[in-house]
Amino acid sequence: MRPGLDQRRFSLNQWTTRHWPLPELAAGCAAAGVTGVGLWREPVAEYGPARTGKLMSDHGLTVTSLCRGGFFQRPGALDDNRRAVEMAAELGAPVLCLVSGGLPDGSRDLDGARARAADVLAELAPYAGERGVRLAIEPLHPMFCSDRCVVSTLAQALDLAAPFPSSQVGVVVDTYHLWWDPDVWTGIARAGARGRVALFQVADWVTPLPEGVLTGRGMLGDGCVELRRFRRAVDAAGYTGPVEAEIFNAELWAMPGPSALELTLSRFAQHVA
Amino acid sequence: MRPGLDQRRFSLNQWTTRHWPLPELAAGCAAAGVTGVGLWREPVAEYGPARTGKLMSDHGLTVTSLCRGGFFQRPGALDDNRRAVEMAAELGAPVLCLVSGGLPDGSRDLDGARARAADVLAELAPYAGERGVRLAIEPLHPMFCSDRCVVSTLAQALDLAAPFPSSQVGVVVDTYHLWWDPDVWTGIARAGARGRVALFQVADWVTPLPEGVLTGRGMLGDGCVELRRFRRAVDAAGYTGPVEAEIFNAELWAMPGPSALELTLSRFAQHVA
Repeated sequence: MRPGLDQRRFSLNQWTTRHWPLPELAAGCAAAGVTGVGLWREPVAEYGPARTGKLMSDHGLTVTSLCRGGFFQRPGALDDNRRAVEMAAELGAPVLCLVSGGLPDGSRDLDGARARAADVLAELAPYAGERGVRLAIEPLHPMFCSDRCVVSTLAQALDLAAPFPSSQVGVVVDTYHLWWDPDVWTGIARAGARGRVALFQVADWVTPLPEGVLTGRGMLGDGCVELRRFRRAVDAAGYTGPVEAEIFNAELWAMPGPSALELTLSRFAQHVA
Repeated sequence: MRPGLDQRRFSLNQWTTRHWPLPELAAGCAAAGVTGVGLWREPVAEYGPARTGKLMSDHGLTVTSLCRGGFFQRPGALDDNRRAVEMAAELGAPVLCLVSGGLPDGSRDLDGARARAADVLAELAPYAGERGVRLAIEPLHPMFCSDRCVVSTLAQALDLAAPFPSSQVGVVVDTYHLWWDPDVWTGIARAGARGRVALFQVADWVTPLPEGVLTGRGMLGDGCVELRRFRRAVDAAGYTGPVEAEIFNAELWAMPGPSALELTLSRFAQHVA
Protein backbone atom coordinates (compact mmCIF):
# COMPACT_ATOMS: atom_id res chain seq x y z
CA MET A 1 0.00 0.00 0.00
CA ARG A 2 0.97 3.63 -0.50
CA PRO A 3 0.31 5.56 2.63
CA GLY A 4 -1.11 9.08 2.33
CA LEU A 5 -0.18 11.92 4.63
CA ASP A 6 -2.55 10.95 7.41
CA GLN A 7 -1.77 7.28 6.97
CA ARG A 8 1.84 8.06 7.78
CA ARG A 9 0.71 9.26 11.20
CA PHE A 10 -0.85 5.89 11.90
CA SER A 11 0.82 3.91 14.66
CA LEU A 12 -0.09 0.38 15.66
CA ASN A 13 -0.37 0.04 19.40
CA GLN A 14 0.85 -3.43 20.13
CA TRP A 15 -2.13 -4.33 22.33
CA THR A 16 -4.36 -4.17 19.22
CA THR A 17 -2.54 -7.24 17.93
CA ARG A 18 -1.70 -8.51 21.36
CA HIS A 19 -0.47 -11.99 20.52
CA TRP A 20 1.72 -11.00 17.53
CA PRO A 21 5.36 -11.66 18.47
CA LEU A 22 7.60 -8.60 18.13
CA PRO A 23 9.74 -9.80 15.14
CA GLU A 24 6.61 -10.72 13.16
CA LEU A 25 4.90 -7.50 14.19
CA ALA A 26 7.90 -5.47 12.98
CA ALA A 27 8.04 -7.29 9.66
CA GLY A 28 4.26 -7.15 9.24
CA CYS A 29 4.10 -3.42 9.93
CA ALA A 30 6.94 -2.73 7.52
CA ALA A 31 5.24 -4.81 4.83
CA ALA A 32 2.00 -2.86 5.33
CA GLY A 33 3.74 0.52 5.06
CA VAL A 34 3.20 1.32 8.73
CA THR A 35 5.90 3.56 10.19
CA GLY A 36 5.04 3.74 13.92
CA VAL A 37 4.35 1.31 16.74
CA GLY A 38 3.36 1.76 20.38
CA LEU A 39 4.83 -0.99 22.55
CA TRP A 40 4.11 -2.56 25.95
CA ARG A 41 6.52 -3.19 28.75
CA GLU A 42 6.05 -6.94 29.21
CA PRO A 43 6.89 -8.01 25.64
CA VAL A 44 9.66 -5.39 25.43
CA ALA A 45 11.20 -6.68 28.67
CA GLU A 46 11.08 -10.20 27.31
CA TYR A 47 12.74 -9.32 24.00
CA GLY A 48 15.10 -6.80 25.57
CA PRO A 49 14.61 -3.02 25.34
CA ALA A 50 17.70 -2.15 23.28
CA ARG A 51 17.18 -5.18 21.04
CA THR A 52 13.55 -4.20 20.53
CA GLY A 53 14.60 -0.66 19.63
CA LYS A 54 17.02 -1.99 17.04
CA LEU A 55 14.45 -4.45 15.66
CA MET A 56 12.04 -1.60 15.11
CA SER A 57 14.52 0.80 13.55
CA ASP A 58 15.81 -2.00 11.29
CA HIS A 59 12.26 -2.20 9.94
CA GLY A 60 11.92 1.57 9.51
CA LEU A 61 9.61 1.79 12.49
CA THR A 62 9.49 4.59 15.05
CA VAL A 63 8.44 3.65 18.56
CA THR A 64 5.74 6.18 19.36
CA SER A 65 5.08 5.27 23.02
CA LEU A 66 5.68 2.76 25.76
CA CYS A 67 2.68 1.51 27.74
CA ARG A 68 2.65 1.83 30.64
CA GLY A 69 3.74 3.17 33.95
CA GLY A 70 1.54 4.32 36.78
CA PHE A 71 -0.47 2.27 39.29
CA PHE A 72 0.80 4.66 41.90
CA GLN A 73 -1.04 3.06 44.82
CA ARG A 74 1.00 -0.13 44.61
CA PRO A 75 3.91 -0.68 46.97
CA GLY A 76 7.18 0.19 45.23
CA ALA A 77 5.38 2.22 42.59
CA LEU A 78 8.02 4.93 42.34
CA ASP A 79 10.81 2.43 41.74
CA ASP A 80 8.71 0.52 39.24
CA ASN A 81 8.00 3.73 37.36
CA ARG A 82 11.68 4.68 37.32
CA ARG A 83 12.37 1.29 35.68
CA ALA A 84 9.67 2.07 33.12
CA VAL A 85 11.28 5.42 32.34
CA GLU A 86 14.64 3.70 31.91
CA MET A 87 13.11 1.14 29.58
CA ALA A 88 11.51 3.87 27.47
CA ALA A 89 14.86 5.64 27.19
CA GLU A 90 16.69 2.45 26.23
CA LEU A 91 14.00 1.49 23.74
CA GLY A 92 13.93 4.96 22.22
CA ALA A 93 10.28 5.65 23.08
CA PRO A 94 9.70 9.39 23.48
CA VAL A 95 6.55 8.95 25.57
CA LEU A 96 5.71 6.79 28.58
CA CYS A 97 1.95 6.40 29.12
CA LEU A 98 0.85 6.54 32.74
CA VAL A 99 -2.33 4.95 34.05
CA SER A 100 -2.65 6.18 37.61
CA GLY A 101 -4.12 3.05 39.15
CA GLY A 102 -7.32 2.82 41.17
CA LEU A 103 -8.04 2.74 44.87
CA PRO A 104 -5.97 0.59 47.20
CA ASP A 105 -7.82 -2.57 48.27
CA GLY A 106 -10.65 -1.75 50.66
CA SER A 107 -10.07 1.99 50.41
CA ARG A 108 -12.75 4.59 49.78
CA ASP A 109 -10.31 7.49 49.80
CA LEU A 110 -10.62 8.71 46.23
CA ASP A 111 -9.25 12.17 47.01
CA GLY A 112 -6.26 10.51 48.68
CA ALA A 113 -5.58 8.28 45.68
CA ARG A 114 -5.70 11.30 43.39
CA ALA A 115 -3.34 13.23 45.67
CA ARG A 116 -1.01 10.23 45.69
CA ALA A 117 -0.81 10.35 41.88
CA ALA A 118 0.27 13.98 42.07
CA ASP A 119 2.91 13.14 44.70
CA VAL A 120 4.50 10.33 42.70
CA LEU A 121 4.46 12.45 39.55
CA ALA A 122 6.46 15.14 41.37
CA GLU A 123 9.20 12.57 42.00
CA LEU A 124 9.00 10.96 38.60
CA ALA A 125 8.77 13.94 36.24
CA PRO A 126 12.34 15.29 36.68
CA TYR A 127 13.69 11.74 36.55
CA ALA A 128 11.97 11.22 33.22
CA GLY A 129 12.99 14.66 31.97
CA GLU A 130 16.65 13.89 32.59
CA ARG A 131 16.33 10.78 30.43
CA GLY A 132 14.52 12.46 27.55
CA VAL A 133 11.24 10.64 28.20
CA ARG A 134 7.98 12.51 28.36
CA LEU A 135 5.34 11.28 30.79
CA ALA A 136 1.82 11.14 29.39
CA ILE A 137 -1.02 11.02 31.92
CA GLU A 138 -3.89 9.01 30.52
CA PRO A 139 -7.39 9.63 31.81
CA LEU A 140 -9.36 6.38 31.63
CA HIS A 141 -13.11 6.06 31.30
CA PRO A 142 -14.85 6.56 34.68
CA MET A 143 -15.92 2.90 34.67
CA PHE A 144 -12.27 2.12 35.50
CA CYS A 145 -12.06 4.64 38.34
CA SER A 146 -12.02 2.20 41.26
CA ASP A 147 -9.73 -0.49 39.89
CA ARG A 148 -7.49 1.02 37.22
CA CYS A 149 -7.36 4.77 37.05
CA VAL A 150 -8.57 7.49 39.39
CA VAL A 151 -7.85 10.06 36.66
CA SER A 152 -11.16 10.10 34.80
CA THR A 153 -11.25 13.27 32.72
CA LEU A 154 -8.97 15.27 30.47
CA ALA A 155 -9.41 18.27 32.78
CA GLN A 156 -8.06 16.24 35.71
CA ALA A 157 -5.09 15.03 33.67
CA LEU A 158 -4.31 18.60 32.66
CA ASP A 159 -4.50 19.75 36.29
CA LEU A 160 -2.09 16.97 37.26
CA ALA A 161 0.30 17.94 34.47
CA ALA A 162 0.15 21.67 35.16
CA PRO A 163 2.94 21.92 37.79
CA PHE A 164 5.53 20.43 35.41
CA PRO A 165 7.17 21.66 32.21
CA SER A 166 5.18 20.44 29.21
CA SER A 167 8.35 18.77 27.93
CA GLN A 168 8.26 16.54 31.01
CA VAL A 169 4.55 15.85 31.43
CA GLY A 170 1.72 15.77 28.89
CA VAL A 171 -1.57 13.95 28.53
CA VAL A 172 -3.00 11.16 26.38
CA VAL A 173 -6.16 11.89 24.44
CA ASP A 174 -7.85 8.53 23.89
CA THR A 175 -11.20 8.60 22.14
CA TYR A 176 -12.45 5.48 23.92
CA HIS A 177 -12.03 7.01 27.34
CA LEU A 178 -13.11 10.57 26.63
CA TRP A 179 -15.84 10.50 24.00
CA TRP A 180 -18.72 10.91 26.48
CA ASP A 181 -17.29 14.02 28.19
CA PRO A 182 -19.17 17.20 27.29
CA ASP A 183 -16.04 19.18 28.18
CA VAL A 184 -13.66 17.19 26.00
CA TRP A 185 -13.57 19.64 23.08
CA THR A 186 -12.65 22.63 25.19
CA GLY A 187 -10.24 20.35 27.06
CA ILE A 188 -8.44 19.36 23.85
CA ALA A 189 -8.15 23.00 22.81
CA ARG A 190 -6.76 23.89 26.23
CA ALA A 191 -4.36 20.94 26.16
CA GLY A 192 -3.12 22.08 22.77
CA ALA A 193 -2.68 25.69 23.81
CA ARG A 194 -0.52 24.49 26.70
CA GLY A 195 1.46 22.08 24.51
CA ARG A 196 0.25 19.14 26.60
CA VAL A 197 -1.02 16.65 24.02
CA ALA A 198 1.65 13.96 24.24
CA LEU A 199 -0.25 11.20 22.47
CA PHE A 200 -3.49 10.60 20.59
CA GLN A 201 -5.06 7.14 20.64
CA VAL A 202 -8.17 5.87 18.90
CA ALA A 203 -10.70 3.12 19.56
CA ASP A 204 -14.46 3.04 19.18
CA TRP A 205 -17.19 2.63 21.82
CA VAL A 206 -19.53 -0.33 21.43
CA THR A 207 -22.12 -1.99 23.67
CA PRO A 208 -22.98 -4.27 25.34
CA LEU A 209 -19.84 -4.18 27.45
CA PRO A 210 -18.38 -7.58 28.27
CA GLU A 211 -17.96 -8.86 31.83
CA GLY A 212 -15.14 -6.90 33.47
CA VAL A 213 -15.46 -4.31 30.65
CA LEU A 214 -11.74 -4.36 29.79
CA THR A 215 -11.80 -6.08 26.42
CA GLY A 216 -14.87 -4.44 24.91
CA ARG A 217 -13.29 -1.70 22.83
CA GLY A 218 -14.69 -1.38 19.35
CA MET A 219 -12.93 -1.54 16.01
CA LEU A 220 -12.78 1.92 14.40
CA GLY A 221 -16.13 2.65 12.80
CA ASP A 222 -18.06 -0.06 14.63
CA GLY A 223 -19.25 2.25 17.39
CA CYS A 224 -20.59 5.71 18.13
CA VAL A 225 -17.47 7.82 18.62
CA GLU A 226 -16.94 10.80 16.33
CA LEU A 227 -13.41 9.63 15.57
CA ARG A 228 -12.67 12.06 12.77
CA ARG A 229 -13.95 14.96 14.85
CA PHE A 230 -11.46 13.96 17.53
CA ARG A 231 -8.62 13.73 15.01
CA ARG A 232 -9.47 17.16 13.64
CA ALA A 233 -9.74 18.58 17.16
CA VAL A 234 -6.26 17.41 18.18
CA ASP A 235 -4.92 18.63 14.85
CA ALA A 236 -6.56 22.02 15.37
CA ALA A 237 -4.99 22.09 18.83
CA GLY A 238 -1.58 21.88 17.18
CA TYR A 239 -0.87 18.17 17.65
CA THR A 240 1.17 16.73 14.80
CA GLY A 241 2.20 13.43 16.37
CA PRO A 242 1.19 9.83 15.82
CA VAL A 243 -2.34 8.50 15.89
CA GLU A 244 -2.17 5.19 17.73
CA ALA A 245 -4.86 2.60 17.21
CA GLU A 246 -5.19 0.89 20.59
CA ILE A 247 -8.09 -1.54 20.58
CA PHE A 248 -8.51 -4.10 23.38
CA ASN A 249 -10.89 -6.54 21.78
CA ALA A 250 -11.11 -10.29 22.21
CA GLU A 251 -12.24 -10.91 18.61
CA LEU A 252 -9.38 -8.87 17.21
CA TRP A 253 -6.92 -10.74 19.42
CA ALA A 254 -8.15 -14.02 17.95
CA MET A 255 -7.25 -12.87 14.40
CA PRO A 256 -3.82 -13.43 12.82
CA GLY A 257 -1.68 -10.28 13.21
CA PRO A 258 -1.57 -9.34 9.51
CA SER A 259 -5.36 -9.56 9.14
CA ALA A 260 -5.97 -7.55 12.29
CA LEU A 261 -3.55 -4.88 11.06
CA GLU A 262 -5.10 -4.80 7.60
CA LEU A 263 -8.58 -4.35 9.06
CA THR A 264 -7.36 -1.63 11.42
CA LEU A 265 -5.59 0.23 8.61
CA SER A 266 -8.59 0.13 6.35
CA ARG A 267 -10.91 1.36 9.10
CA PHE A 268 -8.41 4.04 10.03
CA ALA A 269 -8.44 5.37 6.47
CA GLN A 270 -12.23 5.29 6.45
CA HIS A 271 -13.01 6.79 9.86
CA VAL A 272 -10.01 8.68 11.17
CA ALA A 273 -7.61 9.93 8.48
CA MET B 1 -37.71 -1.46 64.67
CA ARG B 2 -37.70 2.12 65.90
CA PRO B 3 -36.47 4.39 63.18
CA GLY B 4 -34.21 7.29 64.12
CA LEU B 5 -34.35 10.65 62.44
CA ASP B 6 -32.21 9.64 59.47
CA GLN B 7 -33.92 6.28 59.22
CA ARG B 8 -37.20 8.10 58.66
CA ARG B 9 -35.68 9.62 55.52
CA PHE B 10 -35.01 6.16 54.14
CA SER B 11 -37.07 5.25 51.10
CA LEU B 12 -37.06 1.86 49.40
CA ASN B 13 -36.78 2.19 45.66
CA GLN B 14 -38.83 -0.65 44.29
CA TRP B 15 -36.12 -1.83 41.89
CA THR B 16 -34.01 -2.84 44.91
CA THR B 17 -36.59 -5.55 45.64
CA ARG B 18 -37.63 -5.87 42.06
CA HIS B 19 -39.74 -8.99 42.25
CA TRP B 20 -41.67 -8.08 45.41
CA PRO B 21 -45.34 -7.59 44.46
CA LEU B 22 -46.75 -4.19 45.46
CA PRO B 23 -49.18 -5.36 48.18
CA GLU B 24 -46.44 -7.41 49.87
CA LEU B 25 -43.93 -4.61 49.46
CA ALA B 26 -46.33 -2.15 51.09
CA ALA B 27 -47.03 -4.49 54.01
CA GLY B 28 -43.36 -5.40 54.36
CA CYS B 29 -42.23 -1.77 54.38
CA ALA B 30 -44.86 -0.86 56.96
CA ALA B 31 -43.82 -3.79 59.15
CA ALA B 32 -40.19 -2.68 58.96
CA GLY B 33 -41.01 0.89 59.92
CA VAL B 34 -40.19 2.24 56.47
CA THR B 35 -42.16 5.35 55.54
CA GLY B 36 -41.19 6.01 51.91
CA VAL B 37 -41.09 4.09 48.64
CA GLY B 38 -39.91 4.96 45.13
CA LEU B 39 -41.99 3.17 42.50
CA TRP B 40 -41.61 2.16 38.85
CA ARG B 41 -44.02 2.71 36.03
CA GLU B 42 -44.52 -0.87 34.84
CA PRO B 43 -45.71 -2.36 38.16
CA VAL B 44 -47.71 0.80 38.94
CA ALA B 45 -49.44 0.58 35.55
CA GLU B 46 -50.26 -3.04 36.20
CA TYR B 47 -51.70 -2.43 39.66
CA GLY B 48 -53.32 0.88 38.69
CA PRO B 49 -51.88 4.29 39.63
CA ALA B 50 -54.70 5.50 41.90
CA ARG B 51 -55.03 2.06 43.49
CA THR B 52 -51.27 1.97 44.09
CA GLY B 53 -51.39 5.41 45.68
CA LYS B 54 -54.15 4.26 48.02
CA LEU B 55 -52.33 1.02 48.83
CA MET B 56 -49.28 2.99 49.86
CA SER B 57 -51.11 5.60 51.94
CA ASP B 58 -53.13 2.85 53.64
CA HIS B 59 -49.80 1.49 54.84
CA GLY B 60 -48.52 4.86 55.98
CA LEU B 61 -46.16 5.07 53.03
CA THR B 62 -45.25 8.19 51.07
CA VAL B 63 -44.41 7.71 47.42
CA THR B 64 -41.12 9.57 47.05
CA SER B 65 -40.61 9.24 43.28
CA LEU B 66 -41.76 7.56 40.11
CA CYS B 67 -39.15 5.98 37.84
CA ARG B 68 -38.93 6.85 35.08
CA GLY B 69 -39.56 9.03 32.11
CA GLY B 70 -37.04 10.12 29.51
CA PHE B 71 -35.58 8.14 26.59
CA PHE B 72 -36.14 11.23 24.51
CA GLN B 73 -34.70 9.80 21.31
CA ARG B 74 -37.49 7.25 20.96
CA PRO B 75 -40.39 7.95 18.61
CA GLY B 76 -43.36 9.28 20.57
CA ALA B 77 -41.16 10.24 23.50
CA LEU B 78 -43.03 13.42 24.33
CA ASP B 79 -46.39 11.65 24.51
CA ASP B 80 -44.90 8.84 26.54
CA ASN B 81 -43.45 11.32 28.98
CA ARG B 82 -46.75 13.15 29.30
CA ARG B 83 -48.32 9.80 30.28
CA ALA B 84 -45.58 9.35 32.87
CA VAL B 85 -46.31 12.79 34.32
CA GLU B 86 -50.01 11.95 34.49
CA MET B 87 -49.24 8.67 36.24
CA ALA B 88 -47.05 10.43 38.79
CA ALA B 89 -49.85 12.92 39.49
CA GLU B 90 -52.46 10.19 39.87
CA LEU B 91 -50.17 8.09 42.06
CA GLY B 92 -49.24 11.07 44.22
CA ALA B 93 -45.52 10.95 43.41
CA PRO B 94 -44.01 14.43 43.73
CA VAL B 95 -41.02 13.60 41.53
CA LEU B 96 -40.67 11.93 38.12
CA CYS B 97 -37.12 10.69 37.42
CA LEU B 98 -35.94 11.25 33.88
CA VAL B 99 -33.25 9.19 32.20
CA SER B 100 -32.53 10.96 28.94
CA GLY B 101 -31.87 7.92 26.79
CA GLY B 102 -28.77 7.30 24.69
CA LEU B 103 -28.01 7.75 21.02
CA PRO B 104 -30.49 6.70 18.36
CA ASP B 105 -29.48 3.43 16.67
CA GLY B 106 -26.50 3.96 14.41
CA SER B 107 -26.09 7.60 15.38
CA ARG B 108 -22.86 9.26 16.45
CA ASP B 109 -24.49 12.64 17.06
CA LEU B 110 -23.97 13.01 20.79
CA ASP B 111 -24.39 16.78 20.73
CA GLY B 112 -27.64 16.29 18.85
CA ALA B 113 -28.95 13.77 21.38
CA ARG B 114 -28.14 16.16 24.20
CA ALA B 115 -29.86 19.03 22.41
CA ARG B 116 -32.87 16.80 21.86
CA ALA B 117 -33.13 16.21 25.61
CA ALA B 118 -33.24 19.97 26.16
CA ASP B 119 -35.93 20.35 23.50
CA VAL B 120 -38.24 17.71 24.95
CA LEU B 121 -37.75 19.11 28.44
CA ALA B 122 -38.93 22.50 27.25
CA GLU B 123 -42.23 20.91 26.19
CA LEU B 124 -42.54 18.66 29.20
CA ALA B 125 -41.61 20.98 32.09
CA PRO B 126 -44.69 23.23 32.02
CA TYR B 127 -46.92 20.20 31.48
CA ALA B 128 -45.46 18.62 34.63
CA GLY B 129 -45.60 21.88 36.54
CA GLU B 130 -49.33 22.23 35.86
CA ARG B 131 -49.86 18.77 37.37
CA GLY B 132 -47.76 19.34 40.47
CA VAL B 133 -45.05 16.91 39.38
CA ARG B 134 -41.40 17.88 39.52
CA LEU B 135 -39.12 16.51 36.82
CA ALA B 136 -35.78 15.20 38.09
CA ILE B 137 -33.02 14.87 35.51
CA GLU B 138 -30.79 11.95 36.42
CA PRO B 139 -27.21 11.88 35.18
CA LEU B 140 -26.14 8.27 34.69
CA HIS B 141 -22.61 6.96 34.84
CA PRO B 142 -20.72 7.64 31.57
CA MET B 143 -20.62 3.90 30.83
CA PHE B 144 -24.33 4.26 29.96
CA CYS B 145 -23.81 7.25 27.68
CA SER B 146 -24.40 5.51 24.35
CA ASP B 147 -27.33 3.29 25.21
CA ARG B 148 -29.18 4.76 28.21
CA CYS B 149 -28.36 8.32 29.08
CA VAL B 150 -26.42 11.04 27.30
CA VAL B 151 -26.53 13.12 30.50
CA SER B 152 -23.37 11.96 32.24
CA THR B 153 -22.52 14.54 34.91
CA LEU B 154 -24.28 16.57 37.55
CA ALA B 155 -23.03 19.75 35.86
CA GLN B 156 -24.77 18.73 32.63
CA ALA B 157 -28.00 17.95 34.47
CA LEU B 158 -27.88 21.34 36.17
CA ASP B 159 -27.32 23.08 32.85
CA LEU B 160 -30.32 21.26 31.40
CA ALA B 161 -32.44 22.25 34.38
CA ALA B 162 -31.34 25.89 34.42
CA PRO B 163 -33.89 27.35 31.98
CA PHE B 164 -36.83 26.13 34.07
CA PRO B 165 -38.20 27.10 37.49
CA SER B 166 -36.67 24.85 40.16
CA SER B 167 -40.17 23.82 41.18
CA GLN B 168 -40.59 22.29 37.71
CA VAL B 169 -37.17 20.76 37.07
CA GLY B 170 -34.53 19.46 39.47
CA VAL B 171 -31.82 16.83 39.39
CA VAL B 172 -31.21 13.42 40.90
CA VAL B 173 -28.01 12.92 42.87
CA ASP B 174 -27.26 9.19 42.71
CA THR B 175 -24.05 8.05 44.36
CA TYR B 176 -23.60 5.13 41.98
CA HIS B 177 -23.52 7.36 38.92
CA LEU B 178 -21.59 10.32 40.29
CA TRP B 179 -19.03 9.04 42.80
CA TRP B 180 -16.07 9.18 40.37
CA ASP B 181 -16.63 12.82 39.34
CA PRO B 182 -14.01 15.17 40.80
CA ASP B 183 -16.51 18.04 40.38
CA VAL B 184 -19.37 16.34 42.19
CA TRP B 185 -18.90 18.10 45.54
CA THR B 186 -18.98 21.59 44.08
CA GLY B 187 -21.84 20.40 41.86
CA ILE B 188 -23.92 19.30 44.85
CA ALA B 189 -23.30 22.61 46.60
CA ARG B 190 -24.32 24.48 43.44
CA ALA B 191 -27.40 22.29 43.01
CA GLY B 192 -28.40 23.03 46.59
CA ALA B 193 -27.86 26.75 46.27
CA ARG B 194 -30.18 26.73 43.27
CA GLY B 195 -32.77 24.52 44.99
CA ARG B 196 -32.30 21.85 42.35
CA VAL B 197 -31.78 18.66 44.36
CA ALA B 198 -35.04 16.85 43.68
CA LEU B 199 -33.95 13.40 44.83
CA PHE B 200 -31.03 11.62 46.47
CA GLN B 201 -30.40 7.95 45.70
CA VAL B 202 -27.76 5.61 47.10
CA ALA B 203 -26.02 2.49 45.84
CA ASP B 204 -22.40 1.39 46.10
CA TRP B 205 -19.80 0.81 43.36
CA VAL B 206 -18.29 -2.66 43.11
CA THR B 207 -16.18 -4.45 40.53
CA PRO B 208 -15.87 -6.50 38.42
CA LEU B 209 -18.82 -5.21 36.46
CA PRO B 210 -21.08 -7.90 35.02
CA GLU B 211 -21.72 -8.30 31.29
CA GLY B 212 -23.92 -5.42 30.14
CA VAL B 213 -23.02 -3.60 33.41
CA LEU B 214 -26.65 -2.87 34.34
CA THR B 215 -27.11 -5.16 37.31
CA GLY B 216 -23.77 -4.69 39.03
CA ARG B 217 -24.65 -2.09 41.64
CA GLY B 218 -23.31 -2.82 45.07
CA MET B 219 -25.14 -3.18 48.38
CA LEU B 220 -24.44 -0.19 50.63
CA GLY B 221 -21.05 -0.65 52.25
CA ASP B 222 -19.83 -3.36 49.88
CA GLY B 223 -18.02 -0.93 47.60
CA CYS B 224 -15.81 2.14 47.50
CA VAL B 225 -18.28 5.04 47.51
CA GLU B 226 -18.09 7.55 50.35
CA LEU B 227 -21.82 7.19 50.96
CA ARG B 228 -21.99 9.13 54.19
CA ARG B 229 -19.95 11.97 52.69
CA PHE B 230 -22.55 12.18 49.93
CA ARG B 231 -25.42 12.20 52.43
CA ARG B 232 -23.74 14.95 54.41
CA ALA B 233 -23.03 16.93 51.23
CA VAL B 234 -26.66 16.89 50.08
CA ASP B 235 -27.75 17.75 53.63
CA ALA B 236 -25.28 20.64 53.74
CA ALA B 237 -26.67 21.78 50.41
CA GLY B 238 -30.09 22.12 52.06
CA TYR B 239 -31.69 18.89 50.90
CA THR B 240 -34.12 17.51 53.47
CA GLY B 241 -35.91 14.95 51.30
CA PRO B 242 -35.88 11.17 51.12
CA VAL B 243 -32.80 9.01 50.69
CA GLU B 244 -33.78 6.29 48.25
CA ALA B 245 -31.85 3.05 48.20
CA GLU B 246 -31.88 1.99 44.53
CA ILE B 247 -29.71 -1.05 43.99
CA PHE B 248 -29.88 -3.04 40.74
CA ASN B 249 -28.25 -6.27 41.79
CA ALA B 250 -28.97 -9.80 40.64
CA GLU B 251 -28.13 -11.37 44.02
CA LEU B 252 -30.40 -8.98 45.85
CA TRP B 253 -33.21 -9.69 43.39
CA ALA B 254 -32.89 -13.39 44.18
CA MET B 255 -33.57 -12.76 47.90
CA PRO B 256 -37.06 -12.71 49.42
CA GLY B 257 -38.32 -9.11 49.70
CA PRO B 258 -38.28 -8.90 53.52
CA SER B 259 -34.68 -10.15 53.73
CA ALA B 260 -33.50 -7.79 51.03
CA LEU B 261 -35.19 -4.89 52.80
CA GLU B 262 -33.75 -5.88 56.18
CA LEU B 263 -30.24 -6.06 54.75
CA THR B 264 -30.66 -2.72 52.99
CA LEU B 265 -31.97 -1.05 56.15
CA SER B 266 -29.15 -2.35 58.27
CA ARG B 267 -26.52 -1.25 55.76
CA PHE B 268 -28.24 2.10 55.43
CA ALA B 269 -27.96 2.68 59.17
CA GLN B 270 -24.32 1.62 59.09
CA HIS B 271 -23.09 3.50 56.02
CA VAL B 272 -25.48 6.32 55.15
CA ALA B 273 -27.55 7.59 58.09
